[in-house]
Amino acid sequence: MSAPGDAGFLDRARQLLGADQLLTGDGLEAYELDWRKRYAGRALAVARPGTPAEVAALVRLCAEHRVSLVPQGGNTGLVGGGVPDGSGRQLLLSLRRLRQVRQVDRDNLTLCAEAGCLLAEVQAAAGAAGLLFPLSLGAEGSCTIGGNLATNAGGTQVLRYGNARELCLGLEVVTPQGEVWHGLCGLRKDNTGYDLRDLFIGSEGTLGVITAATLKLFPAPRATMTALAACPTLDAALALLGRARAGAGATLTGFELISRACLRLVQRHFPQIPQPLPDDAGAPWAVLLELSDHEDEAHARLLLERLLGDALEAGEAVDAAVAQSLAQAQQLWHLRESIPLAQSEEGLNIKHDIALPISAIPAFVKDCEAALQAHCPGVRLVCFGHLGDGNLHFNVQAPEGQDPAAFLREQEPAINALVYDRVLQRGGSISAEHGIGQLKREQLADSKDPVALRLMQTLKQALDPLGLMNPGRLLRRP
Amino acid sequence: MSAPGDAGFLDRARQLLGADQLLTGDGLEAYELDWRKRYAGRALAVARPGTPAEVAALVRLCAEHRVSLVPQGGNTGLVGGGVPDGSGRQLLLSLRRLRQVRQVDRDNLTLCAEAGCLLAEVQAAAGAAGLLFPLSLGAEGSCTIGGNLATNAGGTQVLRYGNARELCLGLEVVTPQGEVWHGLCGLRKDNTGYDLRDLFIGSEGTLGVITAATLKLFPAPRATMTALAACPTLDAALALLGRARAGAGATLTGFELISRACLRLVQRHFPQIPQPLPDDAGAPWAVLLELSDHEDEAHARLLLERLLGDALEAGEAVDAAVAQSLAQAQQLWHLRESIPLAQSEEGLNIKHDIALPISAIPAFVKDCEAALQAHCPGVRLVCFGHLGDGNLHFNVQAPEGQDPAAFLREQEPAINALVYDRVLQRGGSISAEHGIGQLKREQLADSKDPVALRLMQTLKQALDPLGLMNPGRLLRRP
Repeated sequence: MSAPGDAGFLDRARQLLGADQLLTGDGLEAYELDWRKRYAGRALAVARPGTPAEVAALVRLCAEHRVSLVPQGGNTGLVGGGVPDGSGRQLLLSLRRLRQVRQVDRDNLTLCAEAGCLLAEVQAAAGAAGLLFPLSLGAEGSCTIGGNLATNAGGTQVLRYGNARELCLGLEVVTPQGEVWHGLCGLRKDNTGYDLRDLFIGSEGTLGVITAATLKLFPAPRATMTALAACPTLDAALALLGRARAGAGATLTGFELISRACLRLVQRHFPQIPQPLPDDAGAPWAVLLELSDHEDEAHARLLLERLLGDALEAGEAVDAAVAQSLAQAQQLWHLRESIPLAQSEEGLNIKHDIALPISAIPAFVKDCEAALQAHCPGVRLVCFGHLGDGNLHFNVQAPEGQDPAAFLREQEPAINALVYDRVLQRGGSISAEHGIGQLKREQLADSKDPVALRLMQTLKQALDPLGLMNPGRLLRRP
Repeated sequence: MSAPGDAGFLDRARQLLGADQLLTGDGLEAYELDWRKRYAGRALAVARPGTPAEVAALVRLCAEHRVSLVPQGGNTGLVGGGVPDGSGRQLLLSLRRLRQVRQVDRDNLTLCAEAGCLLAEVQAAAGAAGLLFPLSLGAEGSCTIGGNLATNAGGTQVLRYGNARELCLGLEVVTPQGEVWHGLCGLRKDNTGYDLRDLFIGSEGTLGVITAATLKLFPAPRATMTALAACPTLDAALALLGRARAGAGATLTGFELISRACLRLVQRHFPQIPQPLPDDAGAPWAVLLELSDHEDEAHARLLLERLLGDALEAGEAVDAAVAQSLAQAQQLWHLRESIPLAQSEEGLNIKHDIALPISAIPAFVKDCEAALQAHCPGVRLVCFGHLGDGNLHFNVQAPEGQDPAAFLREQEPAINALVYDRVLQRGGSISAEHGIGQLKREQLADSKDPVALRLMQTLKQALDPLGLMNPGRLLRRP
């Protein structure tokens, strides 16, 4: 559905990339429909450049023809940030062909990868050198490192290693003017001017296109030890977190919170998954702890058993199970990772990816749950997440027996307001790790500090004065 | 030496702050002369606001009167970034009265401090809560946390904990328009828009004024163990670094490189400082290792002794001394920290605070040393620094018996060019931790990637269109 003026643009883009790499017409749903199937867009064309120079030339062509563009990696985003709008006038810029791991530097503990490398490929390249790239998340087999950086992805190891931003040392970026910033610095220390890197990371393609990155690697730990502990209260879970941090330091690489309601949901839909903690202990919370040790398995086991023993004695835990094998450890993680799937089996629900100061979590959960029950008696809270990072997946499910679709339709705005108001009151974030995209753009505009919002708009206007880089994502169109 | 139009400005500033807190006239050297005594400026006045609101009002007043301002913390910077120029028309904005530690949140592991708090005060406030704020550097008794953040300070624990940027979660900033951005977020995860925090950190007061920060704290380690090892080559020192990282993980908190020439210089000027490694081992390099352990001293000692034993066996070290007491550990650090003082005793020299990919360091040092000797036979290299971060203090001293002042005067430009060219060829940085200020502004303009430089100028122009925030520092005046 292209306008007449687009023909010249498409011809030139085809010339630039070769006809094979400029896709038009039907059958482009893999690029146009987002992973959660909430946003079905329509692209002018899908461009698949093969080099950073082709990306730059394409961006210059877009600027010349005033065609806006939407960068896309693995199309696994959860907020509609990487799919075109419905106008049929936006160019979908797929980075998937930029797929080279350019360098692994073992002594410098760095790896340079192009934007279209899958996260799992980056992990594998590090592993092949006997090293660890610790970014890890559910979509790692299909998301790209470029997308991870554009959205500052989180995942399960943030507690120890930080978000994608903390794992990146340098970037190669095509600016909205189609210039290439060669910033693939592999340095731990570089105080030569403003931090451009962190400005592009997390900007969701609205300030430029990341084409490659230099990433931090780490020595691989020699042993990993996992346990599940039952906690009588959220305060007890927090005390256990403090104890684990003090006693294990950076050896603590995972501390995941799981409510008993989550465990029951998994039990209901996936009864074959072993549940090592009986449901009769009266503990409404469980935590999954992981230690990653640089000595050996015996040392890690001793450390974990001592920690849990002390926690049991202090009443911070009432029961605990330490995985006795790699298989058992994987089962515990599988249990944790099956929660979203079990929730899907239960039907549609209202999801919140929130962060809070860790100290504020017990009061927040108590207050918010009471308010939800008052608002909608019988509503079910499915609360789990990365307690060590203050990041909760705070999902709300229809009361038992009610139609989930109707619940979502009727209750989403009110329940979002109820939850987000309480998050913001306590200095929290309405998007901990998923970003803003289209889904939370209006909520951001309504809730962000007004000075911060003006600063962001100023930056957008200064760097992308034509407004062609992923417009309407993250920030409202001006 | 104020111009007639300044009188109205000074009257209003006096009204705003009270006469006591607006200093004019003579006797202001403590604010006008930089710590290294390289830049002697002259301020229109020294303003000492007592609250962030006063800072904001002052910035608005400056904007109205087109008075440029220079923010200053402890005035310990090494690149002339915090002192006024010689015009007598710039307002020196001292942040030293913003001195409150606003909050310590033990469960969230955060501390909120105002910009004028001394780094040592922040460390002490964390320590009083049984926690650690790990930023640590020579000037900690007189530098401020605001200055540390404005310059993205480094120090001795970067290997484990990162630079100032990595230790900060949120900021309160007065913008060039005199608005207050309330960004004192204490969250580990917050993907709600562009990373404004990291844009202000390291911007050296050219984009706004940091008035407070929320900082990351860590559980204090339970034992620290320190050793000095003699290495036969730089490659061997690198191999030892790799071994220590793989075997100790994040327990490794220090890995400092010291050349034998540095040790001899300390021996010459401070013969009372014990030197545990004899000078006859034929090893031209030493490294200072530090482990910080969350278990206990026995565990740390075992780990360190095992590491060093394996390194000796592998030939990565030829001798090693483990500190047997806290006093001995402090002596080892004292030895390391006496190098700059010993060098001062030896006379003026040409300093370089550089960073390189760690893997490039052996070849860089060899090549650069040969080129220096060819350029100026007998020249003495004083090379030490944070090997684990790729950060070298690569200082060049006159040949024995030559006049140091004449050497500095005659050789500085040529030797800077010789060193920096080789740093840049290998993807290094001309300022690892000290920043740019006035000292390296021209070098930055000449050597930075041109696209990066344009992006920085665009950001400066967008955020500070009147050009009143610390003009001529970091970037050239337009």
